This record gives sequence, structure tokens and C-alpha cells, in this order.
Amino acid sequence: MKVGLIGFGKTGKAVAATVLRNKELILEWVVRRSKLLDHRSIPEFLGEPSDEPGLIYSSSLTTISELLDEHPVDIIIDFSSETGLDYYGNEAAKRKVKIISAVSHYSEETIQRLKKYAEKTAVLWSPNITLGVNYLMIAARYLKKIAPNTDMVILEEHFKDKSGVSGTAKIIANNLDIEHQEIKSVRAGGIIGKHEIICGFPFQTVRLIHESITREAFGNGAIFVAQNLIGKEKGFYTFEDLLMPYFAEQKNS
Amino acid sequence: MKVGLIGFGKTGKAVAATVLRNKELILEWVVRRSKLLDHRSIPEFLGEPSDEPGLIYSSSLTTISELLDEHPVDIIIDFSSETGLDYYGNEAAKRKVKIISAVSHYSEETIQRLKKYAEKTAVLWSPNITLGVNYLMIAARYLKKIAPNTDMVILEEHFKDKSGVSGTAKIIANNLDIEHQEIKSVRAGGIIGKHEIICGFPFQTVRLIHESITREAFGNGAIFVAQNLIGKEKGFYTFEDLLMPYFAEQKNS
Amino acid sequence: MKVGLIGFGKTGKAVAATVLRNKELILEWVVRRSKLLDHRSIPEFLGEPSDEPGLIYSSSLTTISELLDEHPVDIIIDFSSETGLDYYGNEAAKRKVKIISAVSHYSEETIQRLKKYAEKTAVLWSPNITLGVNYLMIAARYLKKIAPNTDMVILEEHFKDKSGVSGTAKIIANNLDIEHQEIKSVRAGGIIGKHEIICGFPFQTVRLIHESITREAFGNGAIFVAQNLIGKEKGFYTFEDLLMPYFAEQKNS
Amino acid sequence: MKVGLIGFGKTGKAVAATVLRNKELILEWVVRRSKLLDHRSIPEFLGEPSDEPGLIYSSSLTTISELLDEHPVDIIIDFSSETGLDYYGNEAAKRKVKIISAVSHYSEETIQRLKKYAEKTAVLWSPNITLGVNYLMIAARYLKKIAPNTDMVILEEHFKDKSGVSGTAKIIANNLDIEHQEIKSVRAGGIIGKHEIICGFPFQTVRLIHESITREAFGNGAIFVAQNLIGKEKGFYTFEDLLMPYFAEQKNS
Repeated sequence: MKVGLIGFGKTGKAVAATVLRNKELILEWVVRRSKLLDHRSIPEFLGEPSDEPGLIYSSSLTTISELLDEHPVDIIIDFSSETGLDYYGNEAAKRKVKIISAVSHYSEETIQRLKKYAEKTAVLWSPNITLGVNYLMIAARYLKKIAPNTDMVILEEHFKDKSGVSGTAKIIANNLDIEHQEIKSVRAGGIIGKHEIICGFPFQTVRLIHESITREAFGNGAIFVAQNLIGKEKGFYTFEDLLMPYFAEQKNS
Repeated sequence: MKVGLIGFGKTGKAVAATVLRNKELILEWVVRRSKLLDHRSIPEFLGEPSDEPGLIYSSSLTTISELLDEHPVDIIIDFSSETGLDYYGNEAAKRKVKIISAVSHYSEETIQRLKKYAEKTAVLWSPNITLGVNYLMIAARYLKKIAPNTDMVILEEHFKDKSGVSGTAKIIANNLDIEHQEIKSVRAGGIIGKHEIICGFPFQTVRLIHESITREAFGNGAIFVAQNLIGKEKGFYTFEDLLMPYFAEQKNS
Repeated sequence: MKVGLIGFGKTGKAVAATVLRNKELILEWVVRRSKLLDHRSIPEFLGEPSDEPGLIYSSSLTTISELLDEHPVDIIIDFSSETGLDYYGNEAAKRKVKIISAVSHYSEETIQRLKKYAEKTAVLWSPNITLGVNYLMIAARYLKKIAPNTDMVILEEHFKDKSGVSGTAKIIANNLDIEHQEIKSVRAGGIIGKHEIICGFPFQTVRLIHESITREAFGNGAIFVAQNLIGKEKGFYTFEDLLMPYFAEQKNS
Repeated sequence: MKVGLIGFGKTGKAVAATVLRNKELILEWVVRRSKLLDHRSIPEFLGEPSDEPGLIYSSSLTTISELLDEHPVDIIIDFSSETGLDYYGNEAAKRKVKIISAVSHYSEETIQRLKKYAEKTAVLWSPNITLGVNYLMIAARYLKKIAPNTDMVILEEHFKDKSGVSGTAKIIANNLDIEHQEIKSVRAGGIIGKHEIICGFPFQTVRLIHESITREAFGNGAIFVAQNLIGKEKGFYTFEDLLMPYFAEQKNS
């Protein structure tokens, strides 16, 4: 499976390294805005022992058409920002290249654009593309279904300078019909990221906790998504859509 | 729904109180070995404000036939010990009274007896009849299905004097194919009971935790089971069998 | 050491039971407002196997002078409310009976009254009279002294219906110069009480956690305080004052 | 304060970066066994924006005498292994350069050598040179002093491949007279490092937890030690010796 990556910030680099280490995926290229590393080898730059040939390109020096002509890919993974889509969206959809976007925030308008592309190819958007957080959200929803009166509170902990309530916590809250005032945010030191769903019952408590160790968790999530999206028809997907089939099957009897 | 309770130790009393407070279930009687409280009113003895008429009987003074003749029930809930079944098993099966057993340990022979009764009535056995622990077990199994290479470790904490590894931890381990040496047991002070399934990934950790607050959690679990078992055909059930339908349905779209 | 107890609500009862089980303290009497259990035996009422002779008195039927004449005590332990002091305060101070108050909230005026009594006898006020919470507070203060730039956040979890921010959390915050907005309150199910001080550093996190299991923790705290206060001069003390000597001594070399 | 660093593995590099970022300490040089990076600039190699002039040297190309003649330092910080001491020990002691060793394991013989050096200069050995772990150990010891009957259990969690029980957990256990069988080791995924001291009381639990986020915690610990050791006389010190004065002082009244 050939993959192109949009975005090469801290998270983008961690994702690139994770993809390089994976044997099923080949990282054909990375596109970033800056011209600084143009045409540098990805494995060499990251110090990753890999013989994959992928290079770094600048979006201001190479168009997506040129890139896809010379180095076609099956999937584009986007870890840039909302405007990243301007570069590759139309062309990817036209050529039926699948799209995985891990951009945290999109305006409603951009989401509509994604859905438009989804009429031509498979498009998945996941604002927190870790297996753990998405699993947690589904698992908690089932608990709520079993015990609708459970009190659910979300506790999220992040590094001191993170401003605002965690976007992931808000998504979990929306998904579980938890009021946003039931999100408690702790900001202290260098905590990478912890999300806890506290489920209170009269005589017992259930806690579902996700702790991030490093950004590479996003890389592994993107790979999981790529592997599960590759066989899918055109359409708009969420991480949850890919996880649900695992839950649907009955007990192994 | 009329209920009879076998066993009136610490847990049995907590369960009786919980059932009394529930409006859908009527606690018709409690049977215990000792003659001490024979014919005392259950609500009065427990100090529970309830106008239910149920009395306490001794198994050495009243037979189950006499009891079921005068005070028929839909379900018998057993919080006694392995031998409790000798008192009511045959007669309950014959009369198609449903059986819920929360006895922690049964010999293989007794399990076979339960399955025999299950040919005539609905029988459910749950060695840890809390919603939380049973939910956790299923949720963890799905995580293992999604990510088979996860490292799973079970951490259980209980009061200082609890001897041996927690039976519940062993059941969780068996259910998830976790080796018993991966169960870590902490014994300290008066901890009521905590079970944690630690799921290790390379770059993230998921923790599923159940904490017991009081024994009444067993009562609420028994009520949940009763409510879900009442409409079931004859057969042998586990707590999991009752929870699975909640997981089976697809996303509410 | 002879002890009298003011207050016989849920916590007062748990404290009474704990004191009965302790061999160094003798529970001479309990005083409560209601006339309901007047002159009943404390051990008998609580179902505690003890041969101590203490009885329950109503504050509206027996004055503190009559009580102290017939059943003198060394220490009065108060688990009632702010007005409890009206009953015994003056008389206790006059007779140099030591006072331990575990009342959660006092007005500034009442605190001044306590300090007045402290000119005649030893008076200790602890709004959360558990060893664990008071230890945590001191331990956290030392951490702050060692590393003044640590980010400290207080997380407190209690049962759904508890209104307002935990008074204990506020005391911890005041003690550690933590702003009250850095107290995060979780309300869910039947959680008895958990206080966590999260100390964030750039590359590590320290967490100091106290979990209450049952109200009897207050009883054990009161006994600890009684044992450490009995040899003290007149004066106004806090729980911390009794703990500090344990910290003051140097390394056992 | 001028500092020389012995060892430039993963931890050594993280420590070097932390020291570079600190304004009170100047990193004069790093010594490592390999000749690979000989005479490379430390800030440049680590990509740290610093104008400090320190270079990397190989122990096989430059002797410690040559190094200390040209680039004298106040303190040598050792993050290498047991044999690292052979390179600099004698010479550092002779010149009264202070020594901070963070080497995890030393034979009894090497410890004796360190103590010999301590007759001439200040020597500190800390097998886990983080503020958090050392603080935890002292705080727990005070709790044990206050409540000698507390049940103490140590829980340590690390990445899957870490073999054996954590050395830090063993040190904590020895320090607190906890039997080694009361250390519970969890190995799962990529957990960096977590140490928890669970203190069980009959009716409450206290938990003291240290979580490592990155190796740079060791760098900050080494800096704290350097700042507190610089004014000290010759002698053999532990991290604890530097922390105790913070605990010794009484309440700020």
C-alpha cells in the first residue's frame, strides 16, 4: 500500500517514522509548506534505518498533479491543518485516492467539502486518530446503553501550556451526551495527554482511561485506519465506523 | 416479579436490602441455614422502610416445597455456598422457577448439575455478579480483538486478609487468555475491591478499572440479571449472555 | 483515657464504634440532641461486643455539668455541628477537659470562642480528622518547598449529591497556596471520597492520593489525635501540629 | 558552575540537553567511549540553541588530566556505567572536583571506592536521580513513622521488555523495610516508568505515585543535586541527604 503524507510538523514526523517502520505501507512522499528540506530523503532525515525511497517535497515547488503522476499513492494521510486540503483535495478525489485526515479542527464548510470528495473516494476524518481514544468512546457508549443512569464525567490532563478544553474531550462528551461542564481539565507540568471517563454507579465505579505516551500513537492509529480503509468503497467514514465491525460479532462460542 | 433469596450472610443481607428498595421486584422470602431469625420480617430486621411482607426462614425448619407452595416465586437468587443448591435445585427446576446463582466457586460436578436444571428452566451462574466487572471483561475482549498484540495485565487490590488470588481476576484472565502469572495481587488495609485491566500499546496505554464501593453492588447486579433473565427461555446463561445483545446492535445512526 | 462523644449521626456512630474497639480509650458517654435513645447502652445499640458501660444521653435531658460530675472524662470529641459547642464548651474549658472538634465548618466567631477555651485547656480543631488527608497536606507542602515551581492541581471526587466543592479540598488549597479554580470536582455515583494532589513537573508527575473507604476513618483519626493530645499543655492545636514532630526528626542514621 | 558529563547514551544525551538549557550550569565537555563524535560541538549535535562551547571527547583519545587541565570543571556528572569511574575517579578526587554518579548498579567494591574518594571531595551517588522518586521515598518513610502498622505495597510499571524488578522499586523497598515480595511488577507496551507506593489503612488508602514522562527528568534531578551539592564539604552523600533539610524545618508560622 503506497502512502503520501501531508504535514511534517512534530506529529507529522512521528507519523512518518511510524509508517517507515511498518512493512505493509510504503511512504512515497511527504509534502510540507516550507521549502527547507525539499527533495531530502525521508528515512535519512529522520535517521530511520529504511531503504524506502520517499522524498520530502514543498507544496510551493511541486503540485499534487506532478507528484501523483510521478509517484502515485493509494492513500493520502493528512496531519497538516485545515488549509492542507486545498493542496490535494480535488485531485485526490478525482483520481480516487483515498483520504485520511487527522486534522483536529475543520469548519463546517470544510467538512461539507470532505463529504463532497466522499462521493468519489473513501474519506475518513478523525480528529484524534488514536486507537485508544476511539475504542474508549465506543466502549463507554455501550456502558451507557446498558446502564443509562450512570453518571459520566470526563477528566482530561495535559501539559501546563495547553489552552482551552481538550478537543478530544469535547468529542467524547458530544458522543456520549455528556454536558461540557462535566469535563474537568487538569493542566500541570509536562503531562502528554490523559483522558479518563469516570462512570459512577451507586455502589461501584468504572473508569476507562487512555494515556498517551508519545505522538507516535497517532502514527499507529493512522496505519490501523489505512489498513481498514483500503478495502472500503467510496463514502465518508469515521474511526468508529472501522471499529464497529469488531464489536458487532457475537461471543466466540 | 417475585423473588426468593437463598443465603443471608453479609452479602445476602446487602442484596436483600437492595431488592427491597427496588419497585419491580418483591422479596417473598429469604432462606438461611440458621434457625436464629426464623419467621422474622425481612424489612424490619434490616431496618428498611418497606411494606413488603417477606419473612426469613430456616432451611432446617421449612422445606422448599412448603415454601414454594405457600409463597411461589418467579426467580430464586442464591448468594449462599455450593451446598445451597441441595436445598432448592431439584424443586426449582421441576417447577420451572428461574435460578440465579452468585456462588463464587462450584465444583465441575455442581456445574453439570446446574446445566441439568437448565434443561428445564433458565439458569444463570455468575461468580461475580456486578455489572461493572462483567462489562469490563467484555469491553476488554473487544479491545483484544481489535488489537491482538496488546499486552494485558490484571491488577487486583483487596483488603489485607483476603487470601489467594481474587477469583474474579482469574475469571477475567481465563476470559481474555491472560496467563495467571500476569495477575498482580495487592493486599493492603481495608480496600474493598479493585480490578484493573492494563492494556499496553507501544505508544499509549488503556486502563479499564472497576472499583467496588459496597456489597450492595452485588444486589444491583442480581436485579439487572433478574430483569433480563425473566423473559428468557430455559437454558444455561452467563452474565455475559445478557450483556452481549447491548453490544451487538450497530451504531445509532 | 476516658472520652465523651458529642454527636451521634452517621459519622458519630462510626466514631463511637471505632472508639469502643480501641483498648486505650473508654467511651464514657455519647450526647445527642434527640431524646430517642436516652439511657440506652452504646455497645448494645451499635451491636459492638464490648463491656464498656457508656450510655447515650440527650442534651435536652441531661446538662453537661451533671454528666461530668457523674461521669468525668479526659477528652470530649465533637462530631456534631457548630452549635454543639454551646452545650459543652464553657464547662469543658472550666474543668480543663481537653476538646477535639471535628466539626466541618465554624464561623470566625466560633473559632475565636475555641481559642478562648484554649487559654484554659488543650483544644484541637480538625475539619477533616483523617490521618491520610492531614498527612497528604504536609507532604505536599514539603514538595512545594523543594520545588516551588511545581504546578499543583487538586482533584476531588465524591458522590453525586454532594453539593459544592469539598471543604477538605478548599483547606488543602489554602494550605498550599493553590487557587480555588485549580480544584476540580467530580460528582459521580456513590464515590465515598477521594482527594488527589497532582504535582506536575516538566518531565515527571507526582500524585498524592487519599481515598476514604468508610466513615470509620474519622474514628481512627480522632483516636490518633486523642492519643497525641493527651499529654499536651493548654493551647490551640491543629492536626498538623501533632504530625509535625514526626517530620521534624532527622534521618535515622 | 562548570560541569563535565561522563556518558552519552540515550539518558546522557537527554541530560546534556537539560544542562544546556539551564543558565546556572555550563556544560564544559562530554566524555564517551566511542571515537565517533570526537570534538563535535555538543549544542550543535543535539540541535540545542545554545552558545556554550562544550565539545564531545572520546575517553580513548583524551585523558581526564588533559581534559581537566584545559577545561577545568566544578562537578563531574556520571551517567555511564560502573567502569566509567575508572576514567575519572582518582583524578577528580585528587583535584577535589565534586562527583555526582547516577549509575544504576555498583558492586560493593566500587561503592567502597566512591567512599574513599569522598574523603577528599563531595561525592553523591543516586541510582535513580529524579526528584520525584527520592521525594516519594522520604514522604513514605514519614508516613510509616506516623503509622507504623500501615500495609505498604510497591507497584511498578514499565515497558514490556524491561527485565527483572525495577532497581528503583528495590531501593524504595529497602528504604521502607518492605519485603521484596510486596513489589508488584507490571510490564506492558511502552510505559516509560511508574512507581506507586500503596499505603493501606483499615478505612482509608494513601497512594504516592511517581510517573516519568521522559528521560530528561534525570537531567533535572542532576541539576537539582549539583545546585545543592556545590556548597557542601567533602563526604559521601545521597539524594536524600540533600532533601532532608527541606523537611527538617518546622511549620512556617
